[in-house]
Amino acid sequence: MKAPVHPVYSLPIPFDSMHYDDASVDLHEKHHGKLRIETTVPLETKENLSLAYTPGVAAPCRAIVNDPEAVWKYTIKSHTIAVITDGSAVLGLGNIGAKASLPVMEGKCALFKRFAGLDAFPIALETQNVEEIVRTITAIAPVFGGINLEDISAPRCIEIEQRLSSTLDIPVFHDDQHGTATVVLAGLLNASKVVGKELSKMKIVVSGAGAAGSAITRLLHSYGVGDIIVTDSKGVVSAHRDDLGWLKNLLASFTNKSDACCMLYDALKGADAFVGVSKPGVLKPEMISVMAEKPIIFALANPDPEMMPDEAKKAGAAVVATGRSDYPNQLNNVLVFPGIFKGALESRTKRITQGMMVKAAEALAALVPNPTADNIIPGVFDPRVVGTVAATVRH
Amino acid sequence: MKAPVHPVYSLPIPFDSMHYDDASVDLHEKHHGKLRIETTVPLETKENLSLAYTPGVAAPCRAIVNDPEAVWKYTIKSHTIAVITDGSAVLGLGNIGAKASLPVMEGKCALFKRFAGLDAFPIALETQNVEEIVRTITAIAPVFGGINLEDISAPRCIEIEQRLSSTLDIPVFHDDQHGTATVVLAGLLNASKVVGKELSKMKIVVSGAGAAGSAITRLLHSYGVGDIIVTDSKGVVSAHRDDLGWLKNLLASFTNKSDACCMLYDALKGADAFVGVSKPGVLKPEMISVMAEKPIIFALANPDPEMMPDEAKKAGAAVVATGRSDYPNQLNNVLVFPGIFKGALESRTKRITQGMMVKAAEALAALVPNPTADNIIPGVFDPRVVGTVAATVRH
Repeated sequence: MKAPVHPVYSLPIPFDSMHYDDASVDLHEKHHGKLRIETTVPLETKENLSLAYTPGVAAPCRAIVNDPEAVWKYTIKSHTIAVITDGSAVLGLGNIGAKASLPVMEGKCALFKRFAGLDAFPIALETQNVEEIVRTITAIAPVFGGINLEDISAPRCIEIEQRLSSTLDIPVFHDDQHGTATVVLAGLLNASKVVGKELSKMKIVVSGAGAAGSAITRLLHSYGVGDIIVTDSKGVVSAHRDDLGWLKNLLASFTNKSDACCMLYDALKGADAFVGVSKPGVLKPEMISVMAEKPIIFALANPDPEMMPDEAKKAGAAVVATGRSDYPNQLNNVLVFPGIFKGALESRTKRITQGMMVKAAEALAALVPNPTADNIIPGVFDPRVVGTVAATVRH
Repeated sequence: MKAPVHPVYSLPIPFDSMHYDDASVDLHEKHHGKLRIETTVPLETKENLSLAYTPGVAAPCRAIVNDPEAVWKYTIKSHTIAVITDGSAVLGLGNIGAKASLPVMEGKCALFKRFAGLDAFPIALETQNVEEIVRTITAIAPVFGGINLEDISAPRCIEIEQRLSSTLDIPVFHDDQHGTATVVLAGLLNASKVVGKELSKMKIVVSGAGAAGSAITRLLHSYGVGDIIVTDSKGVVSAHRDDLGWLKNLLASFTNKSDACCMLYDALKGADAFVGVSKPGVLKPEMISVMAEKPIIFALANPDPEMMPDEAKKAGAAVVATGRSDYPNQLNNVLVFPGIFKGALESRTKRITQGMMVKAAEALAALVPNPTADNIIPGVFDPRVVGTVAATVRH
């Protein structure tokens, strides 16, 4: 038995998570992390060395000097992704810094391999300065075919992603924004079918105005959902508040058309769906009881949701989804990012657009043609997913 | 047949190299580079995902927050090296930039795996500004257990290496300096035995005053070799010259005690050894003819040496070594850097010292107890090498 690992955040850890803690620590210690780098060419003879290294290696180098695009042909660039964080908003753990974020980044890289066959390497940055982050990622970009930003706090993450997208010639995808928004849209498309409502006419409350919340809100809005209310820890994000930064002000400008006030409880009155990308425990049974008929509850905080699924169902939820692999309806980004990058690399796409995200969401939802309360989204191991999503980026 | 690859430097490529060109280009194209990243943990079930990723992964993250040293235990840091260049001085190809340098960096990573079982990842920087390079490497350091700098032009490489060494808590090794100097010292220890001379009393001419030449000169000087002359493309590096930067001025301050003047030919008069880390073809038969008896010729320019071994022997060389895998006496850094990093990571060494380099050179030389003209250094595939070198760092 090892000494217990102490949580760094003050909320109590649900018993449910504790189940995995020791086993996960053991797994990470046994394997010294979760990745290894292998060579793909023989290195057993002097002739092998002469081709893979000097003198032969000079030839592909010269070929790339003469045609920089040849870097896609002769190096690992065409199949290699960077998974990059500054450790500022890791899972539900918060600002835990570069080193402590590495197990998550390695896990993400492992998922890229498992689900898309792509090679991903984790980079945890020892800086949280936006200028430094943009400069650093720009400097290390040559070896990578794409950049997956991860667990960078809002609104900094949006500036970083948009600046990099406009200058780099490879796709930059901020999974917490774009992956989450895409899978939430896919889930809502099918959940709305289950409850017999039209998505664009639903009233949706998004709890959390960070990277995920703001991206979900923008994608739903662009999809035609007219009545969205965003809440943060202080309540409804509204134009009446004077404590909002640029991102929340932007959200306030096109949401909350009923001019709701006050807290999450108030916002949820008559709402058709709750989409939580906030914190464990913020959703209470009495809040669900004031929602419209057949409420949809997406409780996506990781690793511990806004409300546990059993409790949500008991409180009247018609459809419940979480981000977890141990409950039905796992709205996990793993349904999105492997296919997005696979399609982008195969077609040498330089930008991931909002249009691609909508198409990917529709294609994902269509993989479950007859959704039910416990089956609104393909399982993460469904072998059709990655190809289906990749195809929406390619075309 | 593919279109011929045009050389980017103006010197003619010896026919010898052409032999490998097409085969190497084919190899790189077939495999899309030379590395892949694999997962080391199972990802086949939901339970697997719950341990490697959310929710379980939060536990090792929290453990690292509570004890940052645990990053060595739960992540890939303990076995992962960065191979980093800015593409400014790649092989004999010169300043070919980040993208074109990648085949060499990948090759180096492949060698780390093949010879030390270490996982190495290539980073080619899209900047050649010293401040930016230092900042970038500092920012990406958390995931790495060591930094191997590669093919960065002198004297910038020395500033970069020394600044990083003084601030990072992981070893920084500039292979072109330290690896080359170590293997040259090992080779000279045995070559001097073959010709029956005492190394410290030899007159040695180092052709090339860049990263390798300056490091070799400094290591030989610290080892007690009293008579060293350094030459660059303009001739002897001497205190009389007014065109020297800080590095060559430093070299001039403790070399050339006979106050030789003029060109390489003049410097070689009466010299016991030529150590070339300069350019293909700079050594001519008539230069060898003015050296002392039983001259030692180390022609280490890559991929094409200062003089081909057959020609050097014909001109009277008693011992000839190159950096190439297709001739005897391969003084290749691969004899050094895998063991240095293996030892450093195993013992969590924070600095690679000059003392470690001398010990590594002596240990390497001792692996060939009875050296001959064609056998002064262990072969790169000698399985004793990596452990022998690693032990000198550990102790």
